[in-house]
Amino acid sequence: MKVFKSFILSFNSMKYVAKIDVSLKSGHSNPESETTAHLLKELGYQVEKVDTSKVYTIALNASSLAEAEATAEEMSKRLLANPTKDIYTINVVEQ
Amino acid sequence: MKVFKSFILSFNSMKYVAKIDVSLKSGHSNPESETTAHLLKELGYQVEKVDTSKVYTIALNASSLAEAEATAEEMSKRLLANPTKDIYTINVVEQ
Repeated sequence: MKVFKSFILSFNSMKYVAKIDVSLKSGHSNPESETTAHLLKELGYQVEKVDTSKVYTIALNASSLAEAEATAEEMSKRLLANPTKDIYTINVVEQ
Repeated sequence: MKVFKSFILSFNSMKYVAKIDVSLKSGHSNPESETTAHLLKELGYQVEKVDTSKVYTIALNASSLAEAEATAEEMSKRLLANPTKDIYTINVVEQ
């Protein structure tokens, strides 16, 4: 029965790649951005502003694009982003 | 004279935004990716692979798109990426 279920699951599921970009909400101090901007200016570059973000590229299985997007949203809320301080954007494509 | 030079500079320069995505070359161990994949699996998600990268979004002044791209390339080589272990992609747009 377990094998049969796995077969159904693998038959229905498709591969997706979710890109989840997590960055600090504006107004939160970002020492890494500030240090990078400072160093680039010291090196002589005309830099106005630097922002940094972390991007997670996740290969996952789902039965539809909508399901993959919902899963990526849930993963962001549960693990990847901290809703108190972070904002995130999600972009999912079929592989 | 200094004021005049600044005027010329600001007259010629336009605003660009460079997005520089820095990630580890394949084959290099990435504990953050591995831990994230492990945790997502523990939470019950059908995750195949996780990659992480750091994105620098830099607002800068340049006289042309080509100059802004060349500057972003130089900043990546000099500060943002380590050529021994990192790969990077650059995407510059006019603001």
